[in-house]
Amino acid sequence: MQSLQEKASEWSGVDQEDAFAIDQVNLYHKLGGLQPFINLSTDFYTRVYDDEEEWFRSIFANSKKEDAIQNQYEFFVQRMGGPPLYSQRKGHPALIGRHRPFPVTHKAAERWLHHMQQALDNATDIDHDSKTRMLNFFRHTAYFLVAGNDLKKQSQGVPPCNGANKPAAI
Amino acid sequence: MQSLQEKASEWSGVDQEDAFAIDQVNLYHKLGGLQPFINLSTDFYTRVYDDEEEWFRSIFANSKKEDAIQNQYEFFVQRMGGPPLYSQRKGHPALIGRHRPFPVTHKAAERWLHHMQQALDNATDIDHDSKTRMLNFFRHTAYFLVAGNDLKKQSQGVPPCNGANKPAAI
Repeated sequence: MQSLQEKASEWSGVDQEDAFAIDQVNLYHKLGGLQPFINLSTDFYTRVYDDEEEWFRSIFANSKKEDAIQNQYEFFVQRMGGPPLYSQRKGHPALIGRHRPFPVTHKAAERWLHHMQQALDNATDIDHDSKTRMLNFFRHTAYFLVAGNDLKKQSQGVPPCNGANKPAAI
Repeated sequence: MQSLQEKASEWSGVDQEDAFAIDQVNLYHKLGGLQPFINLSTDFYTRVYDDEEEWFRSIFANSKKEDAIQNQYEFFVQRMGGPPLYSQRKGHPALIGRHRPFPVTHKAAERWLHHMQQALDNATDIDHDSKTRMLNFFRHTAYFLVAGNDLKKQSQGVPPCNGANKPAAI
């Protein structure tokens, strides 16, 4: 069976090395701290909450825009070399676990990436090389979460109805 | 509804600040690099794979001991200030998603912590203060995963049998 990261690479077209090229430089320091991340997430979620595609916008309907922005930029800052703001407030990122309530399909991943591409294009405080690293990371991560979403389908597909309610890999 | 991190704090008895006190010092540098982490995970998994409690040992039956050791120490190194070894090889830690196949119950968390406590007690290359920080992190994380495990029960409890197969929070 393909691993999560193998699926993410295949579906996103971004290999593991390019996806984690964010770790070859400290982007938090390179970009000069918090503000470019706050700006990026604010621009991104402004696009998301104004999306003309109702099916995508509705995924976020139960979250406040300010909370979505803070959750995202704190995670980005922590993952890209800055202080662990996200974990101090919320614990482990646990990306798959925390995306569990949402329908992270290929189509939703592409729509998410469409808005993030636009937000990055619009960012004047992020240099070209950093944008490339970040976009590869985002693209791979989006499809990592699509792969994580498929785990949900697998477990929903079998156990409780036939009574064979035992864990998958044991 | 209680968040994952609120449940983790309540059940583990370790508050958020103590759990992430691992971030107040760079433990990877303080301990002098990779070796203490390799030693800890090797000692830990030797205890786990030799556990007299068959129910616990069997949770790991489908994984090779060497792989379990490497996955664990690479994650610890990455999370505690060292190079991102885990992500380079496997992508996001995604702790809840990757523990999904396993029955992470309160009882299993306590057994895991019992072995980790013994491995830490046995470690001569980790100072007392670092041991305290690490144990608080492990204790909180173990119960964070018990909280993550409960998400699984929730989603297994409802949808596929009654046909209302829609995502939880939307």
